[in-house]
Amino acid sequence: MALTVGVDIGGTKIAAGVVDEEGRILERVKLATPKDSGQVAATIAEAVNTVRQNHEVEAVGLGAAGFVSADRATVLFAANMSWRNEPLRDRIADLVHLPVVVENDANVAAWGEARFGAGNGVDNVVMLTIGTGVGGGVIIDGRLLRGHFGIGAELGHYRVQPGGLLCGCGQHGCLEQYASGSALTRLVKAGAARNPEKAKLLLSLGDGTPEGIAGSHITLAAREGDPVALEGFAEVAVWIGQAMADMTAILDPGVFILGGGVSEAGEILAAPAREHYHTVAPATGQRPLAEVVTATLGPDAGIIGAADLARDR
Amino acid sequence: MALTVGVDIGGTKIAAGVVDEEGRILERVKLATPKDSGQVAATIAEAVNTVRQNHEVEAVGLGAAGFVSADRATVLFAANMSWRNEPLRDRIADLVHLPVVVENDANVAAWGEARFGAGNGVDNVVMLTIGTGVGGGVIIDGRLLRGHFGIGAELGHYRVQPGGLLCGCGQHGCLEQYASGSALTRLVKAGAARNPEKAKLLLSLGDGTPEGIAGSHITLAAREGDPVALEGFAEVAVWIGQAMADMTAILDPGVFILGGGVSEAGEILAAPAREHYHTVAPATGQRPLAEVVTATLGPDAGIIGAADLARDR
Amino acid sequence: MALTVGVDIGGTKIAAGVVDEEGRILERVKLATPKDSGQVAATIAEAVNTVRQNHEVEAVGLGAAGFVSADRATVLFAANMSWRNEPLRDRIADLVHLPVVVENDANVAAWGEARFGAGNGVDNVVMLTIGTGVGGGVIIDGRLLRGHFGIGAELGHYRVQPGGLLCGCGQHGCLEQYASGSALTRLVKAGAARNPEKAKLLLSLGDGTPEGIAGSHITLAAREGDPVALEGFAEVAVWIGQAMADMTAILDPGVFILGGGVSEAGEILAAPAREHYHTVAPATGQRPLAEVVTATLGPDAGIIGAADLARDR
Amino acid sequence: MALTVGVDIGGTKIAAGVVDEEGRILERVKLATPKDSGQVAATIAEAVNTVRQNHEVEAVGLGAAGFVSADRATVLFAANMSWRNEPLRDRIADLVHLPVVVENDANVAAWGEARFGAGNGVDNVVMLTIGTGVGGGVIIDGRLLRGHFGIGAELGHYRVQPGGLLCGCGQHGCLEQYASGSALTRLVKAGAARNPEKAKLLLSLGDGTPEGIAGSHITLAAREGDPVALEGFAEVAVWIGQAMADMTAILDPGVFILGGGVSEAGEILAAPAREHYHTVAPATGQRPLAEVVTATLGPDAGIIGAADLARDR
Repeated sequence: MALTVGVDIGGTKIAAGVVDEEGRILERVKLATPKDSGQVAATIAEAVNTVRQNHEVEAVGLGAAGFVSADRATVLFAANMSWRNEPLRDRIADLVHLPVVVENDANVAAWGEARFGAGNGVDNVVMLTIGTGVGGGVIIDGRLLRGHFGIGAELGHYRVQPGGLLCGCGQHGCLEQYASGSALTRLVKAGAARNPEKAKLLLSLGDGTPEGIAGSHITLAAREGDPVALEGFAEVAVWIGQAMADMTAILDPGVFILGGGVSEAGEILAAPAREHYHTVAPATGQRPLAEVVTATLGPDAGIIGAADLARDR
Repeated sequence: MALTVGVDIGGTKIAAGVVDEEGRILERVKLATPKDSGQVAATIAEAVNTVRQNHEVEAVGLGAAGFVSADRATVLFAANMSWRNEPLRDRIADLVHLPVVVENDANVAAWGEARFGAGNGVDNVVMLTIGTGVGGGVIIDGRLLRGHFGIGAELGHYRVQPGGLLCGCGQHGCLEQYASGSALTRLVKAGAARNPEKAKLLLSLGDGTPEGIAGSHITLAAREGDPVALEGFAEVAVWIGQAMADMTAILDPGVFILGGGVSEAGEILAAPAREHYHTVAPATGQRPLAEVVTATLGPDAGIIGAADLARDR
Repeated sequence: MALTVGVDIGGTKIAAGVVDEEGRILERVKLATPKDSGQVAATIAEAVNTVRQNHEVEAVGLGAAGFVSADRATVLFAANMSWRNEPLRDRIADLVHLPVVVENDANVAAWGEARFGAGNGVDNVVMLTIGTGVGGGVIIDGRLLRGHFGIGAELGHYRVQPGGLLCGCGQHGCLEQYASGSALTRLVKAGAARNPEKAKLLLSLGDGTPEGIAGSHITLAAREGDPVALEGFAEVAVWIGQAMADMTAILDPGVFILGGGVSEAGEILAAPAREHYHTVAPATGQRPLAEVVTATLGPDAGIIGAADLARDR
Repeated sequence: MALTVGVDIGGTKIAAGVVDEEGRILERVKLATPKDSGQVAATIAEAVNTVRQNHEVEAVGLGAAGFVSADRATVLFAANMSWRNEPLRDRIADLVHLPVVVENDANVAAWGEARFGAGNGVDNVVMLTIGTGVGGGVIIDGRLLRGHFGIGAELGHYRVQPGGLLCGCGQHGCLEQYASGSALTRLVKAGAARNPEKAKLLLSLGDGTPEGIAGSHITLAAREGDPVALEGFAEVAVWIGQAMADMTAILDPGVFILGGGVSEAGEILAAPAREHYHTVAPATGQRPLAEVVTATLGPDAGIIGAADLARDR
């Protein structure tokens, strides 16, 4: 039975796991991400070597935030590390003496969910990873869309609003500015500031001030029926629904998977997003539409997807 | 040497050709499209049988406007014919006794250009077909993107403007409303009505009135430097440039091909579109961008692409 | 009883009338507008002299398309004449030997309607004149808003859509591009081209082709229930409703008057516009909203308003 | 010499002053706003009675946030107090035994600036008060625009972006969401989070975190050349410039005054706003445009304007 290691390289922690062909994690470890970007490779290697001790592993897959080259060897650019053209594949391969592939973190999560999670069995999948920003992963006819330069499926960065909000990427009106967890938090903070009485439950979860509202509070409060939290989800859902309509015109997938931290709200987000999608999809009523489901693997999607892509190399 | 027949089924004419493995058309015919949709299959068969007389052909590829099923057998919906769930593959196969595949017309044109025309040699291609409407074709890692339901790459129908113009598809703000030949004509007619003196050259090509301006006049006049025609192209080019930026975020191709009647203006359209693309592309300056070229096969792209897809089945 | 003459200077005809203090037209004449802008003043004087023959008149008011100076003496700029800084007041005064005031045509129509037509009795009125373009007139506390430079109330030229349609004024996204008769015609032509069967009634009023649809056909067809014509009005009404919401935030009038050729459709336009206005008005439910009515004076509004402004000088 | 008292009723303090006919404040007091809305009237009266002790005053003007009735007697609705249909005029008149008028706070500030501050001498003035939200005041032909229901000049609440950001007023895309101090802070916090190195100066003014950035820090940092703070001002200035273009089309003022806390940045805001205004104004080049200046009275504008409106009753 062929085993591989998947590594999810985050800004605060590095999580690694040994994964089998069924997408099960047999062993796992989590280490703190070093402040010094120069030390990250050593910590990745340490994580890989820790989990492989009791297993025969064949390869390593790394999921990294940022732009990854088309040959899956180099991190071209990363926002949360000081890496520029970092030859991560070879650096890790030298340390662990195994074949290594590098892939974008949203791509590995999408691959994990598509193969072993919410997309199980469908060959055409689009995953929206809704966290601080909005990431994407696209599977077409069973193959991961990487793009000519390795930088495809950056679904948070097509323009949804001319003259729209300034984005961190330097352009205006990107989807990420409207459909991310940051957008949700902005909406809910403003709602609570306007109407603290209505947001009483929500405010009670933090320090009592709108500024003290954290993303996790919003999901909790929405589950308890807090109207301000629910309105925030409804606003974001409209943009997610529109994005799914746009991706249907372009990619025509069989299933949309909503992942990332915001998607932990489950149907609180998915139900209004699906409803709006059905309203604004192209040629509505004259064509079949994709299923809309919530991710099922949680934070493990990255480890599982990275490991499987290493096997699939 | 394996030969196949490609057929381009248009609203006014049906064009067929025998095509070799290098994408050369060895023999061709063009018949009028019957008014009665029920007679179209017979005319297609007649065209195929006419061109195959002196050639050994192995298969037939049909390019049809509208939604084509994922198994390439059925036209689900066509705007310019009364076809609904038309089993076109089997109907033609019965008449010509050859294997048949059906594909969307913008897809076959994109495939033809990608394999034998402007995209020669690149595995990741996006073609925008800018005619009366805006069609699209997407090639990823050398394979045509068809979509889960066979209806992908409808690039004219993602939303570029919230609350935007009503589209024929029933939604508002679709790309097609801003970047098509119809949009160009609308712009130029309005410009000429406002300032007939400035549009003197353009108006002289028709009956002298703004309403008498045809699409072909606009390209001709732009080549002669007519300022109103050039302004129209510049407006449309901004939307094409934005669409290429959006497709870069999502699909990250190596080349964009601009095709369709409007693209016959060549660099008059491509140059400002390319320039705007470079300005609004995501993460500009931190990532490579696609080439922007004009289609080279002209109206033959459909025949050549359809024939090649039949071979590739 | 003080009488004045009002003159409506149009692109094709010059209409003059003797008007009493109750806004009644006692005598009228209509002359063709000379092709040569240099002859227009003489024709205006001829019209004035014709109607005054049997009446004692005290002053003359002129309504002219274009920008009129704050002192109501000069036409600064007109799109449909070759006038630039035309000293129209003095030119006409020299010819008719009466005091003369010049005012913008949409302003005089608004004044006529506000004083003697649909706005009778209300001191705060906004009129939208929906013809080929969109003009406006604003009355605040019983006084006509002229603006510091004489060019206020150009309500068709505030921006309603960032990155929107190119306007004749040189900017993008002006209200006029979405809420004018031209916009209505564009919508309805496109609807009829897409679905001629559905637009059968409408098409039967012209030459049978979408291009042959005239503005007057659309109103006629809508009255007979033609679905394509009604959809066109519904689209335009959404923009009119939004414009009224915007003007409510800024000007807070007591009544909106819908005038111009498109408003001849009456409640076919006004009803959906009013409904949308109630939905999108600021602070809906927490503040009173303006009435929405259709103009009642028809093309006479200009003559009546111009005459009354001359009296009011 | 006739003296009046002006009162600026804020959420945290109530400021009153005795003002002469030249707009000079001769005496002043500032009291804390009571938490209990029911106590506010008593505190206003106390402030009035305190400042009038050594002066013969004839009337009192009150500037209050919220909707004020057309007869200037009643606060219909206030967001920062629990007042609903509060008969503030009569309540205060009973306590101070002087004639009282009530006016919206942005209106009194605009009146103060127009009469005695930056608009000195111009009869047609539009003031944008850019604080937490965006307020407005409009003077036409020397008279304050109040509106038919007393709720005009709410310039922060016309729609600038279809499908735009949710506003506290319940609608989407209001100017306030893009051009307010809150929008500036949101932009700058995001910029600092993305690029802390670039925002070093700005971050050093607070607790070192993006969330710790206050509005006052942004102006300070911009004055020292902090690039992230300057980019924030530049973004907001584009919307202010567009709003001035829109108000030019509608109101055609002779001068725009930029007031409120954000305008304390002076030309850092005004210069790019003016530049963008010149670019996007209607019929640019064919009409004169308004001056763009920064308010000069600071927080005193409210007291001075309220006092003067009381005199002018």
